[in-house]
Amino acid sequence: MHPDVEPIAFLIGAWRGEGRGVYPTIASFDYGEEIRFTAVPGKPFLAYQQRTWALDDQRPLHAETGYWRPKPAGRLEVVLAHPTGVAEIEEGTVDGGVIDLVATSIGRATTAKDVDGLHRRFELVGPGVLRYEVELAAVGQPLQGHLTAELHRSGEG
Amino acid sequence: MHPDVEPIAFLIGAWRGEGRGVYPTIASFDYGEEIRFTAVPGKPFLAYQQRTWALDDQRPLHAETGYWRPKPAGRLEVVLAHPTGVAEIEEGTVDGGVIDLVATSIGRATTAKDVDGLHRRFELVGPGVLRYEVELAAVGQPLQGHLTAELHRSGEG
Repeated sequence: MHPDVEPIAFLIGAWRGEGRGVYPTIASFDYGEEIRFTAVPGKPFLAYQQRTWALDDQRPLHAETGYWRPKPAGRLEVVLAHPTGVAEIEEGTVDGGVIDLVATSIGRATTAKDVDGLHRRFELVGPGVLRYEVELAAVGQPLQGHLTAELHRSGEG
Repeated sequence: MHPDVEPIAFLIGAWRGEGRGVYPTIASFDYGEEIRFTAVPGKPFLAYQQRTWALDDQRPLHAETGYWRPKPAGRLEVVLAHPTGVAEIEEGTVDGGVIDLVATSIGRATTAKDVDGLHRRFELVGPGVLRYEVELAAVGQPLQGHLTAELHRSGEG
C-alpha cells in the first residue's frame, strides 16, 4: 500500500447496508447499498465502486465509480463518474474517521441530469460501522438533505 | 439488456492487448491493457473499467473507470474518472464499429495533472479485434498522438 493512502486505509474493503433517500421532487425511497474500496499496489489512491438497489425487488438503482486521493495536511480529493452523465470532483478533509467533501467541479454530458451541488459527510461511528449523509442541489432545488445510510464492513479489500 | 445499449453492445465483455505511448515530455513506453464493459440489467449504459500495466514488470500504470451512454442518432456520451485527479465527459458518435469521442468537459482536482484536451477513436477492425488511438493535449502541449493499442476479446460480459 502506498503510504499516502494511510489516512483513509480504514475504508479498504467492502461495506454493505441500507439507506433512505428523500427529495422534494421525488417519492422517498429505501435502498440497499454496497461500497468497495480497493488499494492498488504502489498507487497513492483507492479505487472506489458503489451500487445501490431497491429493497423490494433488488433492481439496480444508482451506481458510481472513481478514485479517492488523500493529500497532505488531511486533504482529500475524490474523482467520480456517475451513469447519470455527471463527472464530478469533490474535495475536502479527512479527520480521523470523519470525511467531509464538497463538489468543486461538476461536468455534465449534453443529456445529463441537472446537478448543481453536492456535499457528503462520512463518519466511522464504531468498529466496522460507517454512516454517511449526502446533501444535493439539483433540478432547480437548493442544497438540502438527500441520502442517509449506515453501512457495515462485509469484507476485506 | 436495455435497448439503448444496442449500438455499443459489441463492446460488452473483456478485452486484452498491448499498446504504445508517446509524448514529447516523456520517454515512449509499451503497456499491457485490459478493458471491461459490463451491462447492468435494465440500465441504458455500459459500466467501463480499464487498467494498464508495464510490460517489463507488470506494475500498474494508468487506470480509468466510468460509464458509456449511447443516445439517439448515433450519439454517445462517456463519463470518466481518472486516478490522476481528472473527471471527464467525452461525447461523439458510434457508426457501426467506429467510435469517435472528444472531451467536452475536463474537471481537475487541485493537485491534478494538467490535461486540456482529449480525442479518442476506437475501431472494431475484425471479429474480436479492437484498435484505438488517443490524442492528448496536456502539460502545455497541443493535441497530438499519445496512445495506440490493439485489444483482443478475452471474455464475455
